[in-house]
Amino acid sequence: MIPSNSIEQVVEYFAGLPTIGKKTARRLAFHLLRQPEETVQAFANALVHMRTHVRECSVCHTFTDAEMCGICASQKRDRTVICVVEEPSDVFAVERTNEYRGLYHVLHGALNPLDGVGPTDIRLRELMARLNTEVREVILALNPNVEGEVTTQYIAKMASPLSIRITRIARGVPVGADLEFADDATLARAFEGRTDV
Amino acid sequence: MIPSNSIEQVVEYFAGLPTIGKKTARRLAFHLLRQPEETVQAFANALVHMRTHVRECSVCHTFTDAEMCGICASQKRDRTVICVVEEPSDVFAVERTNEYRGLYHVLHGALNPLDGVGPTDIRLRELMARLNTEVREVILALNPNVEGEVTTQYIAKMASPLSIRITRIARGVPVGADLEFADDATLARAFEGRTDV
Repeated sequence: MIPSNSIEQVVEYFAGLPTIGKKTARRLAFHLLRQPEETVQAFANALVHMRTHVRECSVCHTFTDAEMCGICASQKRDRTVICVVEEPSDVFAVERTNEYRGLYHVLHGALNPLDGVGPTDIRLRELMARLNTEVREVILALNPNVEGEVTTQYIAKMASPLSIRITRIARGVPVGADLEFADDATLARAFEGRTDV
Repeated sequence: MIPSNSIEQVVEYFAGLPTIGKKTARRLAFHLLRQPEETVQAFANALVHMRTHVRECSVCHTFTDAEMCGICASQKRDRTVICVVEEPSDVFAVERTNEYRGLYHVLHGALNPLDGVGPTDIRLRELMARLNTEVREVILALNPNVEGEVTTQYIAKMASPLSIRITRIARGVPVGADLEFADDATLARAFEGRTDV
């Protein structure tokens, strides 16, 4: 017995989002039914506004409201270092560490020959165009999986003729994790990348 | 460094929903940024449509798109039994069991003198108005907490002059749970309500 198609439709949309199951989706719909009409309207407007106004930064291709994102436009960032990431959400993750003061480059994906994602499908050409004499180092912070690895190797090879230092972020045991539960590959990388104390 | 106010606004709205934290909220926003503009617009429309079109059933006060909900309008339901619940979401929960074939009455809350929720703040008068000669039994399926208990007692007392059977759903150990982890109150109720095998 479905008491309301309007509710079911909202439940479907919510349940289509990542991490949200059918039960949570229903709970969210019922929660919104208890909110003032203006609140729900404002939420809906915010969704549409975001989708229509957010675009890629003309320099680093992260998501932004303006022609150029706040990081690329900032005078306080180190313009000699570019950190390459797969997604705009990765920029948030790195920014949260408060460790990195350089610029970014968002590829919007990683090379995946099996799924037909080639070099022209991600922002690789745009990255090469940024590698001028001002840039000293490119830090590759791609996901530690096959696609990230393939992309890392591709960029390293592509940039090798230039006299720019190409680095990658360390792979090893996550801070706070139990050594016992680390997988073999991670532990092997951690030994490989050991540093002096 | 906030790269986009439009994204942050959507993140705030998502994070304001129950069960959704800031990190998940951001993930949902980024997910929607990858969806076609029409999809996001349709999602937003569904939210507003639901909030403006869904109303309370004129009989049982659950949420519905029509003047009367599908359950109250159905000729297949047993009109001599009314199950009283606190929220429209509870109707879903009971319907999922496929056990109950009677009607419902949604109170939209429970009595809570401390928070100033009195008998006129929930649909109690509307319930009394439904207790005509056709009704044989009222099943109270309120939440097993103090407010639900107070409301249960209140309704039982209110309906006692009428010759209607007033029952409540059993409290006991949840199916599939470990007896060892059941709390004292639940276990005590389970013993109290023991049945012959």
